[in-house]
Amino acid sequence: MNTIGNKFRVSIFGESHGPVIGVTVDGVLPGIPLSVEDFTQDLSRRKAGALGTTPRIEADAPEILSGVYEGHTTGAPLTVIFRNENTRSEDYEAFRKNPRPGHADFTANLKYGGYNDPRGGGQFSGRLTLGIVAAGVIAKKMMYFAKFNAVLKEVGGLTDAEKWPEALKAAAADGDSLGGVVECVVEGLPIGLGEPFWDSVEGVLSHAVFAIPGVRGIEFGDGFEAARMRGSEHIDLFPEHKCCHGEHEEGHHCHHDDPDHECCHG
Amino acid sequence: MNTIGNKFRVSIFGESHGPVIGVTVDGVLPGIPLSVEDFTQDLSRRKAGALGTTPRIEADAPEILSGVYEGHTTGAPLTVIFRNENTRSEDYEAFRKNPRPGHADFTANLKYGGYNDPRGGGQFSGRLTLGIVAAGVIAKKMMYFAKFNAVLKEVGGLTDAEKWPEALKAAAADGDSLGGVVECVVEGLPIGLGEPFWDSVEGVLSHAVFAIPGVRGIEFGDGFEAARMRGSEHIDLFPEHKCCHGEHEEGHHCHHDDPDHECCHG
Amino acid sequence: MNTIGNKFRVSIFGESHGPVIGVTVDGVLPGIPLSVEDFTQDLSRRKAGALGTTPRIEADAPEILSGVYEGHTTGAPLTVIFRNENTRSEDYEAFRKNPRPGHADFTANLKYGGYNDPRGGGQFSGRLTLGIVAAGVIAKKMMYFAKFNAVLKEVGGLTDAEKWPEALKAAAADGDSLGGVVECVVEGLPIGLGEPFWDSVEGVLSHAVFAIPGVRGIEFGDGFEAARMRGSEHIDLFPEHKCCHGEHEEGHHCHHDDPDHECCHG
Amino acid sequence: MNTIGNKFRVSIFGESHGPVIGVTVDGVLPGIPLSVEDFTQDLSRRKAGALGTTPRIEADAPEILSGVYEGHTTGAPLTVIFRNENTRSEDYEAFRKNPRPGHADFTANLKYGGYNDPRGGGQFSGRLTLGIVAAGVIAKKMMYFAKFNAVLKEVGGLTDAEKWPEALKAAAADGDSLGGVVECVVEGLPIGLGEPFWDSVEGVLSHAVFAIPGVRGIEFGDGFEAARMRGSEHIDLFPEHKCCHGEHEEGHHCHHDDPDHECCHG
Repeated sequence: MNTIGNKFRVSIFGESHGPVIGVTVDGVLPGIPLSVEDFTQDLSRRKAGALGTTPRIEADAPEILSGVYEGHTTGAPLTVIFRNENTRSEDYEAFRKNPRPGHADFTANLKYGGYNDPRGGGQFSGRLTLGIVAAGVIAKKMMYFAKFNAVLKEVGGLTDAEKWPEALKAAAADGDSLGGVVECVVEGLPIGLGEPFWDSVEGVLSHAVFAIPGVRGIEFGDGFEAARMRGSEHIDLFPEHKCCHGEHEEGHHCHHDDPDHECCHG
Repeated sequence: MNTIGNKFRVSIFGESHGPVIGVTVDGVLPGIPLSVEDFTQDLSRRKAGALGTTPRIEADAPEILSGVYEGHTTGAPLTVIFRNENTRSEDYEAFRKNPRPGHADFTANLKYGGYNDPRGGGQFSGRLTLGIVAAGVIAKKMMYFAKFNAVLKEVGGLTDAEKWPEALKAAAADGDSLGGVVECVVEGLPIGLGEPFWDSVEGVLSHAVFAIPGVRGIEFGDGFEAARMRGSEHIDLFPEHKCCHGEHEEGHHCHHDDPDHECCHG
Repeated sequence: MNTIGNKFRVSIFGESHGPVIGVTVDGVLPGIPLSVEDFTQDLSRRKAGALGTTPRIEADAPEILSGVYEGHTTGAPLTVIFRNENTRSEDYEAFRKNPRPGHADFTANLKYGGYNDPRGGGQFSGRLTLGIVAAGVIAKKMMYFAKFNAVLKEVGGLTDAEKWPEALKAAAADGDSLGGVVECVVEGLPIGLGEPFWDSVEGVLSHAVFAIPGVRGIEFGDGFEAARMRGSEHIDLFPEHKCCHGEHEEGHHCHHDDPDHECCHG
Repeated sequence: MNTIGNKFRVSIFGESHGPVIGVTVDGVLPGIPLSVEDFTQDLSRRKAGALGTTPRIEADAPEILSGVYEGHTTGAPLTVIFRNENTRSEDYEAFRKNPRPGHADFTANLKYGGYNDPRGGGQFSGRLTLGIVAAGVIAKKMMYFAKFNAVLKEVGGLTDAEKWPEALKAAAADGDSLGGVVECVVEGLPIGLGEPFWDSVEGVLSHAVFAIPGVRGIEFGDGFEAARMRGSEHIDLFPEHKCCHGEHEEGHHCHHDDPDHECCHG
């Protein structure tokens, strides 16, 4: 399905070498100041051309087709498109015969009976993430009370950012590529965000994140490290929650199920 | 939202110490043989009482309320309930004042204005996963062409299963708990499963998996290890896809974007 | 799909002669006083046994399986079931060979490959509306600010209620049945209820209403009569909206598209 | 919500006087021949300029932004836009102070806190139905096995089409408008279309139809007339279903619930 979300619904359309990449966001609050300039910063972080990214350079200039009037969101569905310009005229039909491993070429050709747009991966291209970035810009404006910070933490297994350029150059020289890890910290979320049973914050976020081509894993909090911790290490103490006997250090806690246990009467 | 899925929709209801835990599955194919015995094996794998699990013992006998007629699914919504029997009469209201860290007590109390059912975690109890298991039994019957195998791979950081009993006993003696890692292998899935843009197999599965209390991370394929691989290591070669120069070993491959590259004319 | 709604989601399950008819409502506000007695009045209006209704008599005693704790809704999915008692042991399999016209027998048999529950219409029985009534009781509690009043306006083409008993008896004597028209007036709805583009109040209500077996039409406001009115007759004047020249009577109005038309400067 | 549908999902965007009116259709089968010319016939039926329609004339030339490659649908989300050209520069802000009765001006202004696009009704304009027509063209191509025929049956209460021009001219001369009734006949639908409990064909269709501004009622089959019929008149006999005693005429039938009734052994 090309739509995700319940209150804030994001619908993606477009192909890598078609006329446009686009996104329609429904559920936008009215009255939010929004102009094409608001997209610049986040789009530039996604932008191609930097070391280790695709060499395809595009202007990526957003065009607002609906949902904004006199510089403010109207509350109506908000559509943003990006025109594809740097589209090459190669014989992409060859992808049908020689599908690229690690890409959707083979699967898409089968799934759509040979009618999928093969140019640059069509709808499976990483270029579609332009729509995610645009929707994220709007989402962040609606969630003005929260701070979002996503940073690259690891490239090719290296956590020291100073070593990344060399590693990337070496991989590129071999016609190869490197993986990476991104960490995103969000502060200021309201207590109780997410909805049981299925729509935990973790569940909803991971559903969306795996739409980004190439993502292979996602962790929350301590992530897989939690599997190697004891419960007493992993547990989050409430700030005001003190263990009465003072036997435990901060960040550690006995975690009885019994509310009457003497340890729990902070 | 208590419902997940599009063609196969799973709705969960019930509380840990309420009358029942239940699940309604919509989109079940008609004509599948189904009896309460079909749930036994998977329910027993989830069952409490084993070393390292909750000591709460329940019969967990499924009761089919709808969707089955004369031993076959009818295609109508299929509801299965499990009666809660081993419910304790403790003063769970104390959880409101002394919420357990690492549980939903605090958040639920705030989110529902003090009206949530606090007994045993209410709707946030791990006991709700009974409904997931029941839905999974039905799903596996519908996907008769595939094989599902989920196994415990790691307990408390130990991959050697023979060391688990000792580690669990030691943790239990300390009133503590251990984390774990489960691996699930599915074979026989049809090519092209999942739907772009948002509903990749990874996205949809992870959405569901994070509903299981305590899950902190999920990986597919090589998972986070992929971030430490070069593209040439991570890539899946098509079985028939041979690199023409024979320069690369099996499992490794140059991955050009150029379909006319001589290397790619298998 | 057995679920309808976005914020307030109603999932129906059960068959006419299965163990239960049930409904799960998700999105219920926490803290609403609710007991089985709250369902009595509306259930009794639906109840069989009155002149012109099905002779099948049931206790229709609601049983709350989840979502209520200490007399208040918890905010968790709320499931109500009704046990089927008056189930007859006839050879309903004969319906497969001799499907009743005007019923789902024929279609269901084909659609579900002969696996549908044929007893009393199975999931297509009017008895499933028990779930709608139960959900409605909860909905009305949440919409305490509004007044709902549904009344029977017409039976067998007769608007004079005093003539209905005779007409019903005459039809029954012939082994026949009569149609009817129900009018529902809702007062106190907030301005702006409904969501564009698709989820107008009319669209969402009609979607739900046609789930009631036998409904053949729905109208809002003047309904089909509006098609026979001129726009000037059909239009709703705003109470404070006066035509400046006093040329029009109350309830009629010129309706220019031009906001600068002198008539429109109230 | 701006999206409707489950397998075939239609998302509308745009405003009457914004840059475009658009629609994205997800769930389109791949391999269907589609060009802008395919939209011409149905768009021309909707087109303004005819007697009794809005005088606003637009080219209404569809532009396909995604989902079509080399003249065939790809299976990817298919977006069609229509540029708005004939937009007037009037002071539509006056609509905020003097909202037009029978329009969304007043409600939208309140609902969106004065940020809605007031020009020509914004997202509430009848012009948005361009998106419905475009989606309908695609839907009909997918349902090649069915025939759709929608015709105007009544204008201003007149069923004789020859009298319509005069009635329309008379109303227009008075600055007034007339209502109408449209009948749509669909042939060739597969048996069992629609899904219980909520998604009957009637429910799903009516949900969509009420998105068309001005629609006040919808009927299926005999519609409200059914309320004035006896069951024996309203009932649809199966073609091969003969009443054994020959006592009933074609189209009429006793409708017992008892499958063993002698009358029912066709």
